[in-house]
Amino acid sequence: MFAPVYLDWNATTPLDPGVREAMLPWLDGRFGNASSRHEYGRQARAAIDAAREQVAAAVGAHPTEVVFTSCGSEANNLFLKGAAALMKPGLVAVSAIEHPCVREPAKQLRRAGWRMREIAVDGEGRIEAGDWADTLAERPALVSVMLANNESGVLQDVAALAREARPSGAWFHTDAVQALGKVAVDFRGLGVHALTLSAHKIGGPLGAGALVLDKRVELSPLVAGGGQERGLRSGTENVAAIVGFGAACERVTARLAQEGERLVRLRKRLEAGLAAAGMRIFSAGAPRLPNTVFFAAEGLDGETLVAKLDRAGYACASGSACSSANPEPSHTLLAMGVEPGMARAAVRVSMGRDTREADVDGFLATLSRTVDALNTLTAVAVER
Amino acid sequence: MFAPVYLDWNATTPLDPGVREAMLPWLDGRFGNASSRHEYGRQARAAIDAAREQVAAAVGAHPTEVVFTSCGSEANNLFLKGAAALMKPGLVAVSAIEHPCVREPAKQLRRAGWRMREIAVDGEGRIEAGDWADTLAERPALVSVMLANNESGVLQDVAALAREARPSGAWFHTDAVQALGKVAVDFRGLGVHALTLSAHKIGGPLGAGALVLDKRVELSPLVAGGGQERGLRSGTENVAAIVGFGAACERVTARLAQEGERLVRLRKRLEAGLAAAGMRIFSAGAPRLPNTVFFAAEGLDGETLVAKLDRAGYACASGSACSSANPEPSHTLLAMGVEPGMARAAVRVSMGRDTREADVDGFLATLSRTVDALNTLTAVAVER
Repeated sequence: MFAPVYLDWNATTPLDPGVREAMLPWLDGRFGNASSRHEYGRQARAAIDAAREQVAAAVGAHPTEVVFTSCGSEANNLFLKGAAALMKPGLVAVSAIEHPCVREPAKQLRRAGWRMREIAVDGEGRIEAGDWADTLAERPALVSVMLANNESGVLQDVAALAREARPSGAWFHTDAVQALGKVAVDFRGLGVHALTLSAHKIGGPLGAGALVLDKRVELSPLVAGGGQERGLRSGTENVAAIVGFGAACERVTARLAQEGERLVRLRKRLEAGLAAAGMRIFSAGAPRLPNTVFFAAEGLDGETLVAKLDRAGYACASGSACSSANPEPSHTLLAMGVEPGMARAAVRVSMGRDTREADVDGFLATLSRTVDALNTLTAVAVER
Repeated sequence: MFAPVYLDWNATTPLDPGVREAMLPWLDGRFGNASSRHEYGRQARAAIDAAREQVAAAVGAHPTEVVFTSCGSEANNLFLKGAAALMKPGLVAVSAIEHPCVREPAKQLRRAGWRMREIAVDGEGRIEAGDWADTLAERPALVSVMLANNESGVLQDVAALAREARPSGAWFHTDAVQALGKVAVDFRGLGVHALTLSAHKIGGPLGAGALVLDKRVELSPLVAGGGQERGLRSGTENVAAIVGFGAACERVTARLAQEGERLVRLRKRLEAGLAAAGMRIFSAGAPRLPNTVFFAAEGLDGETLVAKLDRAGYACASGSACSSANPEPSHTLLAMGVEPGMARAAVRVSMGRDTREADVDGFLATLSRTVDALNTLTAVAVER
């Protein structure tokens, strides 16, 4: 198999070998329905309990606050629609740069009689203070602002926002899927009522996510049935994936500081090269994730560039790779006021534990050659 | 690890070694977000497409009719609540012996303004003709009747029910989770609009289920977001689990006839032994799954018996092991008119591809000893 250098860690990550070790017994001799009252069931239950403690510890929560779901998208939907189902229709406010799995359920609520407001961001992609004040003045019932943006890597001051929102009485949720494992995430410190996590963004497996939930928040389950996860998420628990999620949480937390510093150095090296090549780096003035660089070569099509880079041995993303085929320019950049032509040129590089200096240097050299070739083609096309 | 003989295959199954082989590459070198437009993403997409064909082939559906979900519970919830979300409130009719992941979403609809009707079953656990006629006369909008019951193993004539329901205009759904891999399941032959499947009941992994869906049925997604699965189920696809689901479908379909005959022989052997020991076998007069025996030793507590059998080396279930801790007697048996004392005595043995004659014989001998010991204890307790 042709294996380009992987620079798309915000889309998904290869399984951490230590995580795989933890999971493999549950794909081999060990198995069981955690609801079964025999030896197999008890072993499965114990494994889930242990993983719940690991996930809770990674974000400073209590294990009983962790509700396992099948993925981050499900956790975001569970919070918004699950809370709304037990309330009278009111205002749901989500930032204009949320992932589609927050924006779309908010739109579903709008179709069900709620009002929906998208909180504006400034040119750097941070929540815009005036629009935030206006939002709070409208007394939202539900607020969701992501901790780190999947495309730009911009970090929001969620602790301050949650504090400011408190008098409004809103339930405050934050999608921390991209933040976990890259920056410290502290459920209590943030002061939010709910927080979403995902395993496969941190070297864990696909198939496990979590909603960390303040017990005061009542939710109607999206998946109702056997009553698993305190009745908030029915369905036989995916033991292997949950065990892997726990192991991944423990591992990324243990190496967070060291890995964060290493990635910041790589990011600076990459950005220096991009700046020297005349690229525009989005949100360069905002606090950002250590691993993410969102940039554009003016006049080029991001999709085309990413396809050429892939063939030349570097796998990265244009716009958000988390959403399905969608030719629209990045909604994150449009919300930041970037003009559509420039937004269409955007390329995201996201790095991870396997990324090395040589990968950054190789990427920069390949990017330079690829951009030159595309510019030559464009010039020729224009001449004709 | 102490490993009792596993006789609880309706709760979950050990991973088929061939399925594990198919999955392992996706837990090792291979990975990717299927929405990513680079080599990793394309490989993931191709693997999902291949699995979709395998799942569709197992039930005679077209691959584009398969919507992957994280589990059977999610698929059942997606059908009922997803269809209802786009309709005016009406009547939802589900059989009285449905799994909680059908009954509970139906109850959620009732709280949201729908009428809910539970279709009665007769003493053998089959849909009761008179109540079914009455149900249809009320013109339900949504009907759900399971193909095979998880506890008794009773098969319903879903093809006939769906045909009879057609004039009412209802969308007809069947939960085929327990039927798949044990009896032939034919989406077109059944004439239903939607059908639920689950991987972990057929030697596949936890983390994958499917709703096979007639394209005329419009659903609002439970998990909205990036637009995966034709917009019906967002979230990064769990490639390894989906690949395993496909492999499991192919394997159980290939050995269905042979394995079905083998399990029927085992079931008859088990039932002959149970009858000789004076046990009552539920639904003995109805068409049932080849692998499932639901029985009771009058006067004993099923929970206690299952715990003793577990320690003596045989893992089976009392009532439904799919639902979480719940001291209530089996709702399937209560719906059949079995009196609560007898229902509380119920024990389920469900067999699978690893079950051998010696396991059945060993189980019968152990059961006999265990029941004698419990009866002695009870007699002593009564004397005192």
